[in-house]
Amino acid sequence: MRAARGIPLAEPQRLNVVNADVPALAPGTIWVLRGFTSNVRYATKDEVTRLKAAQPALGRPEASCAALIPIKKTAAWWELAQDERRRIFEETSRHTAVGLEYLPAVARRLHHSRDLGEPFDFLTWFEFAQEHAPAFDELVARLRATEEWDYVEREVDIRLVREGSGS
Amino acid sequence: MRAARGIPLAEPQRLNVVNADVPALAPGTIWVLRGFTSNVRYATKDEVTRLKAAQPALGRPEASCAALIPIKKTAAWWELAQDERRRIFEETSRHTAVGLEYLPAVARRLHHSRDLGEPFDFLTWFEFAQEHAPAFDELVARLRATEEWDYVEREVDIRLVREGSGS
Repeated sequence: MRAARGIPLAEPQRLNVVNADVPALAPGTIWVLRGFTSNVRYATKDEVTRLKAAQPALGRPEASCAALIPIKKTAAWWELAQDERRRIFEETSRHTAVGLEYLPAVARRLHHSRDLGEPFDFLTWFEFAQEHAPAFDELVARLRATEEWDYVEREVDIRLVREGSGS
Repeated sequence: MRAARGIPLAEPQRLNVVNADVPALAPGTIWVLRGFTSNVRYATKDEVTRLKAAQPALGRPEASCAALIPIKKTAAWWELAQDERRRIFEETSRHTAVGLEYLPAVARRLHHSRDLGEPFDFLTWFEFAQEHAPAFDELVARLRATEEWDYVEREVDIRLVREGSGS
């Protein structure tokens, strides 16, 4: 567990990714975060087309590294209108444009949590090969330096290595 | 229960609006629909400002009429990018602009359901005085004639009168 903003989570030794309703909790579970995938909220047709052309699937054998980054944005962010959030997200912070520079190295899946009353607004899951770990660090550092991140009040950065990957 | 598109709901005799997690079901319950309120998805700063200036609160004593209109949009709608949905929603269909013409007569609260895996994508709740019922009928007729409604595959229109309102 690395750089974080706000209250951290208890540091886990391992993570179980459940692509379904969360079942009865396994013994030793210290926390559970829930989210859902959904339609795009900011990307234009042109951006969606470029993302689809470049983004890899999850589960690549060589992608033995992962990151789970839960983020909570401020009340001020959510009170902004759609055009104001879009302007900060992309025209100013270039969130999608920056992310595209790291494709196809980094696979990504965004889960929305805020509308479930969860402690975080988003849970983003990333997968990449060990050789691309420095590039991934660069990506998150660039995003954290943007205007969009002025509206992030809590962030936890959990890095993982797949069991049996030998790294 | 009035004009609908697609499979109707069983017609209820009365409705219980629960602003909390749904408790144990009362005897005689024939269906339950769940949704959450959320941030705006399409409205610009200018539109939000105009809505806030004109929209009335729920629960006005004189607003003895209500409507619950659950809607499900097509898969094609949800696959559109944000700018494509915005263009149809407002630049073509003028959803917010048309709605503004009926303020402050009609109070409204939108609930999102799709991300909960519900049968509908949206549950919109409206309240208005008996004298404004014809205006409300005109509002929904105008919206149903828009390009946005080409993407509506299921819609149920439930009209209600408050108990004890004498109408």
